[in-house]
Amino acid sequence: MRATAVACANIAFAKYWGKADPWLNIPAVPSISLTLRGLETVTTVELNPALECDEITIDGELLSPPESKRAVELLDAVRACAQSRCFAKVLSRNNFPKASGLASSASGFAALSVAARAAYGLPFDPVESSRLARRGSASAARSLFGGYVELPQGLPGDDSLAARPLYPPEHWELRLVVAIVCEQPKKMGSRPAMEQTRASSPYYAAWLEHAPKLAQRIREAIAKRDIEALGHASEASFQAMHAAAWAAEPSIFYLEPASVEALHTIRSMREKEGIPVFATMDAGPQVKAICLPEHAEAIAQRLSNTKGVLRVLITQPGPAASLIESPS
Amino acid sequence: MRATAVACANIAFAKYWGKADPWLNIPAVPSISLTLRGLETVTTVELNPALECDEITIDGELLSPPESKRAVELLDAVRACAQSRCFAKVLSRNNFPKASGLASSASGFAALSVAARAAYGLPFDPVESSRLARRGSASAARSLFGGYVELPQGLPGDDSLAARPLYPPEHWELRLVVAIVCEQPKKMGSRPAMEQTRASSPYYAAWLEHAPKLAQRIREAIAKRDIEALGHASEASFQAMHAAAWAAEPSIFYLEPASVEALHTIRSMREKEGIPVFATMDAGPQVKAICLPEHAEAIAQRLSNTKGVLRVLITQPGPAASLIESPS
Repeated sequence: MRATAVACANIAFAKYWGKADPWLNIPAVPSISLTLRGLETVTTVELNPALECDEITIDGELLSPPESKRAVELLDAVRACAQSRCFAKVLSRNNFPKASGLASSASGFAALSVAARAAYGLPFDPVESSRLARRGSASAARSLFGGYVELPQGLPGDDSLAARPLYPPEHWELRLVVAIVCEQPKKMGSRPAMEQTRASSPYYAAWLEHAPKLAQRIREAIAKRDIEALGHASEASFQAMHAAAWAAEPSIFYLEPASVEALHTIRSMREKEGIPVFATMDAGPQVKAICLPEHAEAIAQRLSNTKGVLRVLITQPGPAASLIESPS
Repeated sequence: MRATAVACANIAFAKYWGKADPWLNIPAVPSISLTLRGLETVTTVELNPALECDEITIDGELLSPPESKRAVELLDAVRACAQSRCFAKVLSRNNFPKASGLASSASGFAALSVAARAAYGLPFDPVESSRLARRGSASAARSLFGGYVELPQGLPGDDSLAARPLYPPEHWELRLVVAIVCEQPKKMGSRPAMEQTRASSPYYAAWLEHAPKLAQRIREAIAKRDIEALGHASEASFQAMHAAAWAAEPSIFYLEPASVEALHTIRSMREKEGIPVFATMDAGPQVKAICLPEHAEAIAQRLSNTKGVLRVLITQPGPAASLIESPS
């Protein structure tokens, strides 16, 4: 029994930061993202009765038991559902560099959830796969769907939470230009950083209250294809998220000098040249520019020439996760 | 009738950000600062019955009516108190460069309030001068006193608010190493930036609630001469202030790439080399390191060698504002 699935990375306009339930990985705020074409993880799950535990290999590297914990938990959930006790060999490959500033955990858990269900004989079900992927990495829940996707906020214990598609990729031909400023892994992973923000930031409660309002503005802006409204609300979302983390004790600060340069480049193109371009950042130093297709090349050029920017990727709306090989 | 006064700049550990009363310039949060030796403004006020308005000259430059508005308001208040209608010529000189990242408005309004009262025949009274200076620039209220100084938070309409000395300069021989990263005037002055934060930051209410707790920690740390406690609470104060401003819409962001480099230098010296050194920043891109005298030279050296740092100043606790020439 063997199945292979593909899923794309995504970038959030309305940021996910903070958990309503850390055990079930349920977000405390709604998040809205765009799935990105071409930034793919392809994952094969093959059942093997001879195995005594799951074997997970990512980009040619066999994971240690602690590294594979979350993937094994996902497989356990699928096995429980399929009433199987058979372990599996998982081979996962990203077609984009690990340190590209695009979380491979989103596409990774999305592809794994689709491939695992198929390998264990369960029917293709994006909503079920989104729930499964959410437990591994909340942003992965969104990569099950193509285009513009929302993961609503959840309640503690509500394990039914899954993402839902808002609009297909062709709804709006946006571009996201990714400026990579640092190849090292980020200083602090999202999980401990979210927990530190919750435990010690004076702004965490206000973030939880404010984030749904920003998500609402972003939802409306996407509906109307209003780049100015989307851009301003997206900047407000990443800034409020980073600000809440910065105010934590000990503080969490993801900016590098080159991040500030790239933010200045984007702001300057917008304010001095009138180009509708807006920034977003995730829990790391890379800077992403949100823009229309006609400006993407010029923005990529300027970001490439920005001090400290190592390289630049232009990305566009991408499709839902899918099966590319299923057990016959 | 002519009088000359001198006052020093100061740097806040517990940041002032936000007004309880914008008309009277009354802070909504308590602030605690150190007055800095050698960074002085010397101001002469000379009454002249032939003048038809006040004439204010700073560092050789005659101010236009809009530029001199706040100084004229201070002189008006002194005239009302002294029952005089005579205008004055004001000559003010800073012995530190304007773009040194050390607000000359603090030492400037402090020196002006002392010199003006004396020139108009009013007795030397630091508390009265602190009140007067506060209306011009709240941080100036603190420069009336030497060493460690607090400006409590006030209530709307409470024009009696003045700073009060906590400890004299000799209480604790701290050093503040100032890393100048940008010579241009800051992007947005404190007044409009505070107003924008109040009007639009989702974190402003939480800042108002949190700032007094940080001030209390800073008060206790200064009492105990505890550099670790002072440093951590001071970092928390500047980060919470900058974070509240960053989350405003439009956002207010004072960091330059070199500010981030300097923050990294300070953090690295503390975390990797065990040197008790902590950062603070005001409403601008300069970075100030808080440390003990024995580490000041090494820190200044490292900050000088940090990418983008233009120059470095080492400063130390300084005296109260005083009259250096009074009408005989």
